[in-house]
Amino acid sequence: GDFAKVDLHRRVRCGFPEVVFGQGKTAAQIEAIFRKLLEHGQGGLVTRIGPEVAAHLKAAFPEGEHNVAGRTFRVVGPDGVEPKVGRVVIVTAGTSDLPVAEEARVTAEAWNCEVSLIADVGVAGLHRLLHQLPRLGDADCLVVVAGMEGALPSVVGGLVACPVIAVPTSIGYGAHFHGLAALLGMLNSCASNVVVVNIDAGFNGGHIAGLIARR
Amino acid sequence: GDFAKVDLHRRVRCGFPEVVFGQGKTAAQIEAIFRKLLEHGQGGLVTRIGPEVAAHLKAAFPEGEHNVAGRTFRVVGPDGVEPKVGRVVIVTAGTSDLPVAEEARVTAEAWNCEVSLIADVGVAGLHRLLHQLPRLGDADCLVVVAGMEGALPSVVGGLVACPVIAVPTSIGYGAHFHGLAALLGMLNSCASNVVVVNIDAGFNGGHIAGLIARR
Amino acid sequence: GDFAKVDLHRRVRCGFPEVVFGQGKTAAQIEAIFRKLLEHGQGGLVTRIGPEVAAHLKAAFPEGEHNVAGRTFRVVGPDGVEPKVGRVVIVTAGTSDLPVAEEARVTAEAWNCEVSLIADVGVAGLHRLLHQLPRLGDADCLVVVAGMEGALPSVVGGLVACPVIAVPTSIGYGAHFHGLAALLGMLNSCASNVVVVNIDAGFNGGHIAGLIARR
Amino acid sequence: GDFAKVDLHRRVRCGFPEVVFGQGKTAAQIEAIFRKLLEHGQGGLVTRIGPEVAAHLKAAFPEGEHNVAGRTFRVVGPDGVEPKVGRVVIVTAGTSDLPVAEEARVTAEAWNCEVSLIADVGVAGLHRLLHQLPRLGDADCLVVVAGMEGALPSVVGGLVACPVIAVPTSIGYGAHFHGLAALLGMLNSCASNVVVVNIDAGFNGGHIAGLIARR
Amino acid sequence: GDFAKVDLHRRVRCGFPEVVFGQGKTAAQIEAIFRKLLEHGQGGLVTRIGPEVAAHLKAAFPEGEHNVAGRTFRVVGPDGVEPKVGRVVIVTAGTSDLPVAEEARVTAEAWNCEVSLIADVGVAGLHRLLHQLPRLGDADCLVVVAGMEGALPSVVGGLVACPVIAVPTSIGYGAHFHGLAALLGMLNSCASNVVVVNIDAGFNGGHIAGLIARR
Amino acid sequence: GDFAKVDLHRRVRCGFPEVVFGQGKTAAQIEAIFRKLLEHGQGGLVTRIGPEVAAHLKAAFPEGEHNVAGRTFRVVGPDGVEPKVGRVVIVTAGTSDLPVAEEARVTAEAWNCEVSLIADVGVAGLHRLLHQLPRLGDADCLVVVAGMEGALPSVVGGLVACPVIAVPTSIGYGAHFHGLAALLGMLNSCASNVVVVNIDAGFNGGHIAGLIARR
Amino acid sequence: GDFAKVDLHRRVRCGFPEVVFGQGKTAAQIEAIFRKLLEHGQGGLVTRIGPEVAAHLKAAFPEGEHNVAGRTFRVVGPDGVEPKVGRVVIVTAGTSDLPVAEEARVTAEAWNCEVSLIADVGVAGLHRLLHQLPRLGDADCLVVVAGMEGALPSVVGGLVACPVIAVPTSIGYGAHFHGLAALLGMLNSCASNVVVVNIDAGFNGGHIAGLIARR
Amino acid sequence: GDFAKVDLHRRVRCGFPEVVFGQGKTAAQIEAIFRKLLEHGQGGLVTRIGPEVAAHLKAAFPEGEHNVAGRTFRVVGPDGVEPKVGRVVIVTAGTSDLPVAEEARVTAEAWNCEVSLIADVGVAGLHRLLHQLPRLGDADCLVVVAGMEGALPSVVGGLVACPVIAVPTSIGYGAHFHGLAALLGMLNSCASNVVVVNIDAGFNGGHIAGLIARR
Ligand SMILES: Nc1ncnc2c1ncn2[C@@H]1O[C@H](COP(=O)(O)O)[C@@H](O)[C@H]1O
Ligand SMILES: Nc1ncnc2c1ncn2[C@@H]1O[C@H](COP(=O)(O)O)[C@@H](O)[C@H]1O
Ligand SMILES: Nc1ncnc2c1ncn2[C@@H]1O[C@H](COP(=O)(O)O)[C@@H](O)[C@H]1O
Ligand SMILES: Nc1ncnc2c1ncn2[C@@H]1O[C@H](COP(=O)(O)O)[C@@H](O)[C@H]1O
Ligand SMILES: [Mg+2]
Ligand SMILES: [Mg+2]
Ligand SMILES: [Mg+2]
Ligand SMILES: [Mg+2]
Ligand SMILES: [Mg+2]
Ligand SMILES: [Mg+2]
Ligand SMILES: [Mg+2]
Ligand SMILES: [Mg+2]
Repeated sequence: GDFAKVDLHRRVRCGFPEVVFGQGKTAAQIEAIFRKLLEHGQGGLVTRIGPEVAAHLKAAFPEGEHNVAGRTFRVVGPDGVEPKVGRVVIVTAGTSDLPVAEEARVTAEAWNCEVSLIADVGVAGLHRLLHQLPRLGDADCLVVVAGMEGALPSVVGGLVACPVIAVPTSIGYGAHFHGLAALLGMLNSCASNVVVVNIDAGFNGGHIAGLIARR
Repeated sequence: GDFAKVDLHRRVRCGFPEVVFGQGKTAAQIEAIFRKLLEHGQGGLVTRIGPEVAAHLKAAFPEGEHNVAGRTFRVVGPDGVEPKVGRVVIVTAGTSDLPVAEEARVTAEAWNCEVSLIADVGVAGLHRLLHQLPRLGDADCLVVVAGMEGALPSVVGGLVACPVIAVPTSIGYGAHFHGLAALLGMLNSCASNVVVVNIDAGFNGGHIAGLIARR
Repeated sequence: GDFAKVDLHRRVRCGFPEVVFGQGKTAAQIEAIFRKLLEHGQGGLVTRIGPEVAAHLKAAFPEGEHNVAGRTFRVVGPDGVEPKVGRVVIVTAGTSDLPVAEEARVTAEAWNCEVSLIADVGVAGLHRLLHQLPRLGDADCLVVVAGMEGALPSVVGGLVACPVIAVPTSIGYGAHFHGLAALLGMLNSCASNVVVVNIDAGFNGGHIAGLIARR
Repeated sequence: GDFAKVDLHRRVRCGFPEVVFGQGKTAAQIEAIFRKLLEHGQGGLVTRIGPEVAAHLKAAFPEGEHNVAGRTFRVVGPDGVEPKVGRVVIVTAGTSDLPVAEEARVTAEAWNCEVSLIADVGVAGLHRLLHQLPRLGDADCLVVVAGMEGALPSVVGGLVACPVIAVPTSIGYGAHFHGLAALLGMLNSCASNVVVVNIDAGFNGGHIAGLIARR
Repeated sequence: GDFAKVDLHRRVRCGFPEVVFGQGKTAAQIEAIFRKLLEHGQGGLVTRIGPEVAAHLKAAFPEGEHNVAGRTFRVVGPDGVEPKVGRVVIVTAGTSDLPVAEEARVTAEAWNCEVSLIADVGVAGLHRLLHQLPRLGDADCLVVVAGMEGALPSVVGGLVACPVIAVPTSIGYGAHFHGLAALLGMLNSCASNVVVVNIDAGFNGGHIAGLIARR
Repeated sequence: GDFAKVDLHRRVRCGFPEVVFGQGKTAAQIEAIFRKLLEHGQGGLVTRIGPEVAAHLKAAFPEGEHNVAGRTFRVVGPDGVEPKVGRVVIVTAGTSDLPVAEEARVTAEAWNCEVSLIADVGVAGLHRLLHQLPRLGDADCLVVVAGMEGALPSVVGGLVACPVIAVPTSIGYGAHFHGLAALLGMLNSCASNVVVVNIDAGFNGGHIAGLIARR
Repeated sequence: GDFAKVDLHRRVRCGFPEVVFGQGKTAAQIEAIFRKLLEHGQGGLVTRIGPEVAAHLKAAFPEGEHNVAGRTFRVVGPDGVEPKVGRVVIVTAGTSDLPVAEEARVTAEAWNCEVSLIADVGVAGLHRLLHQLPRLGDADCLVVVAGMEGALPSVVGGLVACPVIAVPTSIGYGAHFHGLAALLGMLNSCASNVVVVNIDAGFNGGHIAGLIARR
Repeated sequence: GDFAKVDLHRRVRCGFPEVVFGQGKTAAQIEAIFRKLLEHGQGGLVTRIGPEVAAHLKAAFPEGEHNVAGRTFRVVGPDGVEPKVGRVVIVTAGTSDLPVAEEARVTAEAWNCEVSLIADVGVAGLHRLLHQLPRLGDADCLVVVAGMEGALPSVVGGLVACPVIAVPTSIGYGAHFHGLAALLGMLNSCASNVVVVNIDAGFNGGHIAGLIARR
């Protein structure tokens, strides 16, 4: 349609097909974009969709997978069956950060990385994190997802040698200001291997981690 | 003078004499207030003073002590020679947080607490903090002073059983916004024994810690 | 489950079991965490739950108590029947601050403190507060809950000798910015025995007050 | 000159001549504006001037008065010798709020009101304020000047029947954000006879108080 | 009940009975407060109520008046039948500012002032305002209600000799930030007879205007 | 009615009739304003209306046009049938910016400009934009609508010689803060032919573009 | 040098040579850029320079003009001697806004427009503005420069038919937040022919006004 | 000394020795830390130092290198002479962003990467950037340094396949708010290979780029 100019060259230019930002798009619009991508031999991944849009896409592309918590839908393209390359480990501070972590997981998997998830190891109970040190040390790239004070990336960053992608979440209340507290914390991290993406941006976290881990 | 109504009842009402906020006051004004306090048998403590004011006060009250880093001047009153009660431990994330920690130290000492200081144990090098666990565990009240992402109080709070007074500092740059990042981090701490005072408020941190430690 | 790593050591380390932050968790998740805590001889307390979750928990743990206004549910553990230690007094500026005060009350009671509540004594009608002076003076620790301009902790702080935990609430409108006005007021309090927790953080206020009052 | 269009009709339209905002104007520009006002039988008042500008104006208008703390210069015009009408009382929370209070005083005096000043009666030592109740009750309009948490107008507002003009000051630090904390506190005052002007706006506070007190 | 301490002395102290802030109170709570006020010979006024609360109050107090747009309910007390004193004129910039203006109107009428309303005379069509000059000139106090850029109080303030109470509204979008743009505009007004109350604070605007107009 | 003072002179003064801001107005109010405009030979355009209001207006003015995405309703007046003058090109960064672009389109068409729309040419796929260079170069004025980082106006501005009206949208999440990120980006554009209107202000963008293009 | 890539094509692409942003550049760097521009037959204009840089440039290019208030230096290029096209009128609210207005003036003159300036006609003295109506009506494009509440563009916009470029200035104090208040006011203008540039951006205001006026 | 706990394990744990944050440290403190690092066979790098500190360090460590623009001083340790691994390309939008870029360059060089710098290729003159495409395509990791609207990382991100580290700078004025505008722009980038570090954080940008490029 006229409403979208699908960036079919992106896979060539950037190594990864365009991913559809589902928020504010109709199911029909997303279906049309997916058809165009598939026609050109590229897989489709859409983020930030609700259950109705997911149901529509599942009907249109029965082979696709819906990640309920992560609010994504993915159709693996002809190019999607390579061997796995690179290890991404996703870590969350609390249980409530899981939806953002799932969005990151699906995205990193779309890069054909080996992805694993460690949940609920926030800094107020440090032993929980220290138990996971071996798994952290194995990663090619870490994604650390945290709300509240967003301190986990700094602590993790000081324990590992690989890059840490910090994803602030909007989990918190009051002076959290919908993720601002966690975001600022992460931007001011005293650990120098920490970089930051937008609040709740599981997609960006998983994407860049996959890109780095594959190198 | 007419410019100030010294709150001489405060020691009775609140257990601690009024402390003079030096910022924006002249040396002569502070001297006058000190004289009034001393006349009434109370010690004098002034915070946030520059070197000229300190020199003036040293000349006026040779027995007084000037803490250069902490920017305080204190004259011990007739009531200032009780035995020490309660242990306050002050912890800083970085070297640059020391002036705020010194202001806290002087204030807690004015409560006749036993005060000690552990500097530069920020969360990006966790082993430095873990080495200090025994000293942390001995405290009746902790004051944790940190700039940058302000993560240290959360980590410390999860390791001890006593109250933690978190003092955010303005040490940082860019998205630190003069201490806002550290302040928000501390207010959103996932450790439930953490309470917060104003940015750079070493005085408040030391004061409340002394008050709690003496109980 | 895999979604949570219950911090069973916290009671040992910090003197108080982990409290579940209910927001964003399912009733089943909370039930599972409670069962784990109870298995280990610890009581369960969950905050920020809605009526459906409360009903589910009441069915699962009939001996538990639901505080409707405070939005908490508590199952007293085997360790919950000590004699009361320490007096916590909770004060609110207005009637609308009561839900936050109730969250504080339940939490301080879980510390086995004697807790009482004085409501609606905001600063625009000072005599109401002055009538309560004797009760204020009896407390080991005060929790002062206020929205709007958040002035009550400063006034109370100047009248008592014990620590004052200030809890800003989101009660207000316009330039209140969901509690920011009250929070900033409290952080800038001219009373030096005032410390601050997050906006609407009744849990944190009650927790730290219990911790201090028991000392 | 061409740089300014002096609003000579303002005295007719609004009952008070234009007051010159000195910040960013040269001494020569201010002198020229004063000459124009005086030619038209109006007095001159300039605010926010430094010592050099004041010296220049004193040389040009030896009969004028320089208020050093308030940073104003005033030349009484031919119209400036009426009997006093209306009582304005200016109250400050702290000693450091005095410069703003002085700007208010000079302005209210330019309305030919009877003006008095009560300094350093902040809310953390309530007895100081309560001692002044009779003087507060006598006022036709109050100006309450406060920095830090800006709580004083709420407390005063609840004790009197006349309008209270709240002037937040930039006195404070950290989360005070140059007066924002005090401003927000005053805008959210629970006392309904409180209205607010800009941070450090002693001129506006004194002006409106004079206008009201004269009625 | 225990939930509220009605400030029955306020009428004596401040000349006006306590007004109930309805937001977050139940109909039963408000009814109880009204009964207490009426027992003591004071009228009742509640603001910020929804239609269900209004219906409940109408049933309980059939003589009371519900202002639908202004979201108020008022029962005139035995003291409510004096002759009118003082003229308040309320001005709005746009049609959408009317609910706030109605809240102001009801409140000023509760002071027994003569109140009139001029709507939709925003600054982008100046002739509309200039046509109303005679009515503006007659007022003892003006209340100017405006959203968007909040420029109307400055323009009105420059045209009249009486005080102007500026009430910013949350009408606007985007960079209006729920009234912040209008609020800041009014606080920075170049007209010196302008004072400001909180965003959407029709009650405060009407209250202070009535207080001033009656003098 | 009394609720609105329709600015019938605006067409004479400003060359364009008053446009009704539909938000917060009832269908009946809008109908009444339209009837008044049409009586005076002016067309009616209302923005920011929902489907029910649109249905009411369609019933009242069957000749009117409802733009569903743009949320506008327009009745062409007797003056609406001149030949087209001036070319406006509207460009969007993403598909989700289309509603704002449609509001701009309807408004520019009401100026009798020739209007065209290029969608989804955001800066992360630059070739999409470069393909449109000839169409961009033909415009008399461009309207560039973008959310997220709001970078498109800067890039477009550097490629053309005509004015660029930048319209930030609220499309984004997290640190987008409802359009603030895009707005600040555009205000700081390094391209000097870029000017900015409010967030989501399609009306303002289309209006000013029409005004410029017709010159 | 290597430090800058002068955009020599800009005159072709955008109709106007690159203008040098002087802030943070050395006199030598600016001289080098000017030489490059002149070599290619283009004039040079630099903004935001201090007196030392200006002196250096005057020595290097004696034919250049230094606008002291506007802080610009301009060397007219071989292309700079066309007849004047288009009328730009620049309006300021106060005397203190003049430096920004001068920057705008120099820039619009570099477009070879006829430029005039009307100073100190702020909205609190409306007659001053109304006297200038004929001059305003003659403009092809207006630049309105205002600090404080930034209301002038709305009032001017409602009086004229041409585009109004609003330039907020940082003139103000307190809740002005260095121009934020004026900026937000202008972005929320109810006059639909108003567009906005950055705070203190006299260059941008003058540039776009020249571009529009020449059409 | 007691003032610092040098994290000598960091090279083992994280692959890179601790870098000294020079801001707020004395020359003597930095010298002491360097001596400790060198004793342990690690090189020393300090950032954010002024000229006096640099002179002191040059005297103490004559073999060290001072980067004047970048405000760094580096002493290559015994471990500093490996062959170069990985290509980092640093890109700046403007000339004024160079100091931040230099800090990044020195840091990435300390990782023994091959580092090159492309300056002044901001988005308003796109051809300048497009000329550099081959060099951009060769990088293992890009660092993109930009102030003003911060759009460059999005455009670059869409043209390359490697990770892009976006470093916002405080270069700008007015609504730039000391780098906030650029920071928010970068966090909201529509290019998914963009991650962000703090404002002016050249150190962090160079560090993470080196870490990634070496992989
Ligand atoms: N209402 C509350 N506000 C803030 N923190 C809470 C609250 N309730 C529980 N917590 C803390 O949240 C932690 C548990 O978070 P979670 O793992 O998400 O259940 C506990 O250790 C408590 O300290
Ligand atoms: N200190 C002050 N704060 C705010 N406004 C002031 C102050 N002093 C004078 N004014 C106002 O500024 C206007 C004059 O501004 P100007 O034309 O720049 O001299 C006068 O009409 C006064 O209302
Ligand atoms: N979508 C819109 N955004 C901003 N302003 C608008 C919009 N639609 C109409 N307006 C302006 O709002 C004014 C009318 O406001 P009102 O009197 O409330 O209908 C008109 O003169 C238009 O300039
Ligand atoms: N310019 C800089 N910006 C941010 N962090 C830095 C900078 N330079 C050094 N650091 C970090 O600061 C830590 C040391 O802080 P300190 O203990 O205060 O010297 C190091 O581990 C670095 O990761
Ligand atoms: Mg947990
Ligand atoms: Mg250190
Ligand atoms: Mg009450
Ligand atoms: Mg005092
Ligand atoms: Mg209207
Ligand atoms: Mg797209
Ligand atoms: Mg003026
Ligand atoms: Mg350049």
